[in-house]
Amino acid sequence: MPILRRRVSRAALAGVILACALRTPPVAADGPPAWLETYREPAGRIIGRALTDTTAWNRLAYFTDTFGHRLSGSPSLTRAIAWAADEMKRDGLEGVRTEPVMVPHWVRGEERLEIVQPVQRALPLLGLGMSVGTPPGGIEAEAVVVGSFDELSRRSEEARGRIVVFNVPFTTYGETVRYRTTGATEAARHGAVAMLLRSVGLPGLRTPHTGVLDYHDPVAPRIPAAAIALEDAEMLQRMQDRGDRLVLRLGMGAQLLPDVASANVVGELRGSEKPEEIVVLGAHIDSWDVGTGATDDAGGCIATWEAVRLLARLNMRPRRTVRVVLFVNEENGLRGGQGYRDRHQNELARHVMMLESDAGVSQPIGFGVSASPGSMALVQAIASLLEGVGAGRVTPGGGGADIGPAVEAGKIPAMSLSVEGSRYFLIHHTDADTLDKIVPADLQRSVAALAVMAYVVADMPERLTR
Amino acid sequence: MPILRRRVSRAALAGVILACALRTPPVAADGPPAWLETYREPAGRIIGRALTDTTAWNRLAYFTDTFGHRLSGSPSLTRAIAWAADEMKRDGLEGVRTEPVMVPHWVRGEERLEIVQPVQRALPLLGLGMSVGTPPGGIEAEAVVVGSFDELSRRSEEARGRIVVFNVPFTTYGETVRYRTTGATEAARHGAVAMLLRSVGLPGLRTPHTGVLDYHDPVAPRIPAAAIALEDAEMLQRMQDRGDRLVLRLGMGAQLLPDVASANVVGELRGSEKPEEIVVLGAHIDSWDVGTGATDDAGGCIATWEAVRLLARLNMRPRRTVRVVLFVNEENGLRGGQGYRDRHQNELARHVMMLESDAGVSQPIGFGVSASPGSMALVQAIASLLEGVGAGRVTPGGGGADIGPAVEAGKIPAMSLSVEGSRYFLIHHTDADTLDKIVPADLQRSVAALAVMAYVVADMPERLTR
Repeated sequence: MPILRRRVSRAALAGVILACALRTPPVAADGPPAWLETYREPAGRIIGRALTDTTAWNRLAYFTDTFGHRLSGSPSLTRAIAWAADEMKRDGLEGVRTEPVMVPHWVRGEERLEIVQPVQRALPLLGLGMSVGTPPGGIEAEAVVVGSFDELSRRSEEARGRIVVFNVPFTTYGETVRYRTTGATEAARHGAVAMLLRSVGLPGLRTPHTGVLDYHDPVAPRIPAAAIALEDAEMLQRMQDRGDRLVLRLGMGAQLLPDVASANVVGELRGSEKPEEIVVLGAHIDSWDVGTGATDDAGGCIATWEAVRLLARLNMRPRRTVRVVLFVNEENGLRGGQGYRDRHQNELARHVMMLESDAGVSQPIGFGVSASPGSMALVQAIASLLEGVGAGRVTPGGGGADIGPAVEAGKIPAMSLSVEGSRYFLIHHTDADTLDKIVPADLQRSVAALAVMAYVVADMPERLTR
Repeated sequence: MPILRRRVSRAALAGVILACALRTPPVAADGPPAWLETYREPAGRIIGRALTDTTAWNRLAYFTDTFGHRLSGSPSLTRAIAWAADEMKRDGLEGVRTEPVMVPHWVRGEERLEIVQPVQRALPLLGLGMSVGTPPGGIEAEAVVVGSFDELSRRSEEARGRIVVFNVPFTTYGETVRYRTTGATEAARHGAVAMLLRSVGLPGLRTPHTGVLDYHDPVAPRIPAAAIALEDAEMLQRMQDRGDRLVLRLGMGAQLLPDVASANVVGELRGSEKPEEIVVLGAHIDSWDVGTGATDDAGGCIATWEAVRLLARLNMRPRRTVRVVLFVNEENGLRGGQGYRDRHQNELARHVMMLESDAGVSQPIGFGVSASPGSMALVQAIASLLEGVGAGRVTPGGGGADIGPAVEAGKIPAMSLSVEGSRYFLIHHTDADTLDKIVPADLQRSVAALAVMAYVVADMPERLTR
């Protein structure tokens, strides 16, 4: 169906919608909006193309193979940003630009952990992001293993001068990640000299998971902190339970260097009728300095970008502008998200919706949405067009770290791509976050879901509200 | 039931068996041997004890935590051997001794692999056991990725002076392990300067699998060889497919030092009536120098040993001797198995059966058996007592690397413990072969299966034949 004919029928439809709107709310509890059917055909065109196009997969492979991991401040991130902007231009996106922000420059340096008593051997570790390093000779100290903050408090005396090991089994990320973010400071408050963390993730293959920590108390000493594998946390626990005296030696060359210049990457498909109204699709281009950051979040970058590229390629320009933003520094600073909010302050009120893809691009199942009840219903109606790709489910609560600052400042309706997530925390922030963990067809379906949602939200008569 | 009463009834039973034997073979196609029922109660005692006793689990935890990995020639293996012999004595086993053998002393040294073109980064690797090292400065060369020996032959010209990368997807161990064992020599025959291998194992988490290689051609140059992770083998393949020139730099400090003294560990429960007839349960105490060799094969050592300890503890002394042998050097030389054969040459004819546990101690499902058809049927009958623990299945083909030399020299009936093996090649020869991959109840059930089988084979009227 040519664009022209579709536009005519959409104009006719607008009249119908207006007439309906006088009698009933646009989305009645008893049914979808009347205009929904007019998007069935365009949705089919998008889906058909997304599910047969290999551009995104090839791009994701090239991107992760070529640039590898992309920690803020690293040369590989700088190269990845430049490449993405160039490629977006080659794709024919409009208004392609890099929007400068300064980012933290944390470097891991050499790391080594050894158990010294009751046995001697090296143990795999990954320092936590933004951790301070140890003195050059490392820290050798007795260790105490605890299973919770409560146990740490009860055994406060034993923590003094020691290395505290948090051996907290993973339940959900939300529940256990606080040991990673705040554990170093909590241990320091009890006099610990270093903190080791059972990795926040599913049982792996001797796999430490890094991630950011937060020295949230300006008064407490900043002590070095690292993640160890489940296997070794359990071994230390067993040794302690047997009554052994544990001695560990930790060496970390981590350093926080001065901030460096970096940038968000932005590209657009300008709206045909209301170009000043903006729908943002976003993901983050930085990663931890392990693996190739394929799932976290190269996949999200390539999928959101591809959604916009596909609309351009199909000549399906919606009424409003669709903008893809590859945010920088999600992992250890959120400077990209903050910079976007600040730079676009004057147009936040014209942001119709912001959607983030940062949960991986495995089989999409739908969307999380933070919006008014009426807008939730609209999104549910749009998502019904995606039932064929398995992405029809809408759940309350959407957003993402990168879009968070702008969403909050502008009270912008926020969404996230929801995906099947059972294996996400197996590879999250590990050296195993590489391309092969992603299924090409899942990436295609994620692109389909993002493109259909973005297109209809940017084109439909109503505007989403928070 | 006290031992004495059982012995009386068994003596009575022997008469019945003898009478039966005159008319029908001991194991008729239409039913189990008549004496089988008399073992139901003793089997129950063994199983009940095995499934409630925590000695084996605690010992396996202590053993793997304390000695870690145990490569032939390493101090940790020496300590593990001494400890095992001491503990067997404390268990009250009889004839406990170490039987000296000389073992190869291969040391890994420092290892490093980098891709230099088209991108630069380090890649995880594990040198293959018994590989030569590189020159001190390493080897930097172009790489060629091939998917089979056939492809190597077709692209022989491209292999000359290069690093050959075998990117062969894992199907079965038997099918793909030949690339590990013979790949270096095959590559050298085509002029390659080093060999890299896609790890022989299931898709893991950026997990290289080591294992022994065999420079099987005395004429071909011995080139360094290492395993890389599936993730990186696929990346190199993609880069080659894109037309990129691949350059790798490999540094390996591997060395083969002079043989060192080591030993098999032997302990027994001497037979009450025919102590000169021997049933051997065995496993190997050495491991690769990664993880803690928990599944390969500390679990087999602890389980076979525990089977004998349990019989002793229960005062269930069978007619024949049950001997546990913890063989040394299974992984890179088989010197323990060869040494056992040589040292026990004069008593091989009195070995009734040898059983090896070297497939892990996950849920036992039964036994592999290499024996005469009549003996197979006897084993099947005995295994029926183990249906309650899930280990009742008997399949043709049993044995093991360690027992192989003696079994072959003495034409001894051979068995292996069969276990649920779906995850074995996920951790095999990796740093993730640690205690936590073993389920305590599976270990208990493995002990039950081993102890019941050993007890009945060592006690029953018939003798197994090859």
